[in-house]
Amino acid sequence: MAASDVASDKKIEDMGKGIVADIKAGRSPKFITLSRTRSNIQYDKKEGYLKLGKAKEERTFLNYSQSKRFMQTVAVAAKCHKFVKENLHTTIRGLFYQLKYSLGEDIDENVFSEQSESNPLIEDIEVALEVKREDLNLNANRKGVLAGNMKVMDTFGKERLEIDCARQGRSGWAIPSDVDNDIEFVDIRAKYVLVVEKDALWQRLNEDGLWKKENFILITPQGQAARGTRRLIRKLADRGLPVYVFTDSDAWGWYIYWTIKTGSINLAYIGSDVATPEAKFIGVTMSDLDRYDFLNKMTINASEVDLKRAQEMLNYNWISNSKEWVTELERMIKSKKKLEQDALQGPRLTFVDDYIKDKIKNKDFLP
Amino acid sequence: MAASDVASDKKIEDMGKGIVADIKAGRSPKFITLSRTRSNIQYDKKEGYLKLGKAKEERTFLNYSQSKRFMQTVAVAAKCHKFVKENLHTTIRGLFYQLKYSLGEDIDENVFSEQSESNPLIEDIEVALEVKREDLNLNANRKGVLAGNMKVMDTFGKERLEIDCARQGRSGWAIPSDVDNDIEFVDIRAKYVLVVEKDALWQRLNEDGLWKKENFILITPQGQAARGTRRLIRKLADRGLPVYVFTDSDAWGWYIYWTIKTGSINLAYIGSDVATPEAKFIGVTMSDLDRYDFLNKMTINASEVDLKRAQEMLNYNWISNSKEWVTELERMIKSKKKLEQDALQGPRLTFVDDYIKDKIKNKDFLP
Repeated sequence: MAASDVASDKKIEDMGKGIVADIKAGRSPKFITLSRTRSNIQYDKKEGYLKLGKAKEERTFLNYSQSKRFMQTVAVAAKCHKFVKENLHTTIRGLFYQLKYSLGEDIDENVFSEQSESNPLIEDIEVALEVKREDLNLNANRKGVLAGNMKVMDTFGKERLEIDCARQGRSGWAIPSDVDNDIEFVDIRAKYVLVVEKDALWQRLNEDGLWKKENFILITPQGQAARGTRRLIRKLADRGLPVYVFTDSDAWGWYIYWTIKTGSINLAYIGSDVATPEAKFIGVTMSDLDRYDFLNKMTINASEVDLKRAQEMLNYNWISNSKEWVTELERMIKSKKKLEQDALQGPRLTFVDDYIKDKIKNKDFLP
Repeated sequence: MAASDVASDKKIEDMGKGIVADIKAGRSPKFITLSRTRSNIQYDKKEGYLKLGKAKEERTFLNYSQSKRFMQTVAVAAKCHKFVKENLHTTIRGLFYQLKYSLGEDIDENVFSEQSESNPLIEDIEVALEVKREDLNLNANRKGVLAGNMKVMDTFGKERLEIDCARQGRSGWAIPSDVDNDIEFVDIRAKYVLVVEKDALWQRLNEDGLWKKENFILITPQGQAARGTRRLIRKLADRGLPVYVFTDSDAWGWYIYWTIKTGSINLAYIGSDVATPEAKFIGVTMSDLDRYDFLNKMTINASEVDLKRAQEMLNYNWISNSKEWVTELERMIKSKKKLEQDALQGPRLTFVDDYIKDKIKNKDFLP
């Protein structure tokens, strides 16, 4: 059992002890967490990411409208405690089925009839106990691949495994859901981290061995970044590595970048764990059109969604404060054109390598 | 350059030589491929998979309505030839941008304005030359993860890398797009292959080390199987390993199974490369409800899509011929209930291990 397992373990026990103490003292047991409603999610200008405010949410057992939810919360916490003690992992779906099974047995009522009832309670507990669901042995969806000069020390049963991320061939190392417990990252000899939106580009750059020649860590989130990938990027930034993000110049690409950088509304409750405000945007940019003439032939039509999103983004104060981003967004809106990272393969497949090297050399990034 | 690279290379050159010969002889050059229209896709009862029939499609240069498409086909073939010669890979998106770039230069006309124009031409060439796009250095989307007692000999630049699929920890080995060229599978010591629909279940079973204890290869396609994963399953079956597939008992799960087993309409043109008719269905089944009493508490409502799909499947002759499958489908339609593989985690997280062991021991499979 890892150190952090013990910690989440202990936290659930303390929560339980608090409830018992309340009952013994004749008080109605309470569960207090932070509110995750939109009004309590704020962009912390100083820190540079989305996080929860201070509004609290309280759940009291002796309250007609809160009693069932209180009981459900305790049931979820008890299950997580069991998983940590057993040292076994499942998902929020597996947790739902365990609740369906055991509560059905004891109480003869379908206490959880839909997973949509148990999901928010897990988040409540994550917030209240200041742990991530991964620390409660709940795996989230995983997605994302990595190559570079670093090693992973992973655990498999009683074995300690060393995985060399420089020797994973065409596949790369698949980034897991949990990058904190029973896993370590050692021998990090790379100079920076490059995150590319598309797996296709990851494969292109990996084949060219660009991460090896330039000594960086090459990550693709394979689209929008999953929790594990966001957390890993944060952890690599904590080791002092600069993080550069490379996406399409369109609504989806920008969304991927800003999610990595500032976090997201959905995960604001663990913002400091998953956001990387230090991240910079390497491209592609609309201003690349001025720098590389051929790209003017490579643009495609922006969709309605792209244009609408660009307009919306101009309203976010962390974007409207940046002259460079405003220029980018307005240029798309005006031209109704967009640019994909794949377009850089137009003249020759390896052109994208030179593009990256130029950008890094000239420190040509957007904030 | 691998042996198969040389082959696809040569095939494109022969195609080119044929065109030149036609021109020199004063004939209109022709390109002949098999038709991929629905009417030319048939289920081969004897072989057990979907494949193309014999209907041909001919494209002649000196024909007003076919001339542009003929020229486009040659342009696509020329690009693929270049990629193979360069020993560099891209995607069908990357190919589109190269066509957009170079044709725009030479001809001053946007010969390909949408990728939807170049995509079918790639399939034409795959069929005509009897190669897969992976052999033409075009990577497809990849998805899927593997663990088990086998090793991968992959190539990275000039290096030959050995990847031990028994030492990939929580991540597993990420199955690439191309599992044929410059890659080998050696030291396969496992007894069979278990394919589980969901990555979550893969992680569960991997954590329990079940593949190690029972000595099988554990694969998840992470939903519907990508080309690379289907091809790898086919290749493992070619080595004599039995293949068992484990999905939800619902429309999506059945679709995943039947796609692995019989191939799919979309990939009928490479049916023999990607279908595994020997595959058997391990579960979950509606008849599991009779065997494991607690599962009756674990069913959830079938969706409209599930019910409609079940009804449709009863009309496929390769399904209606199987008494077991008819019983399964009718049982869902009648009860309007479905069962997920996650439900097996209800009593305890490791119950699913016992379920698999029982099924394998009793050879309790659906065809």
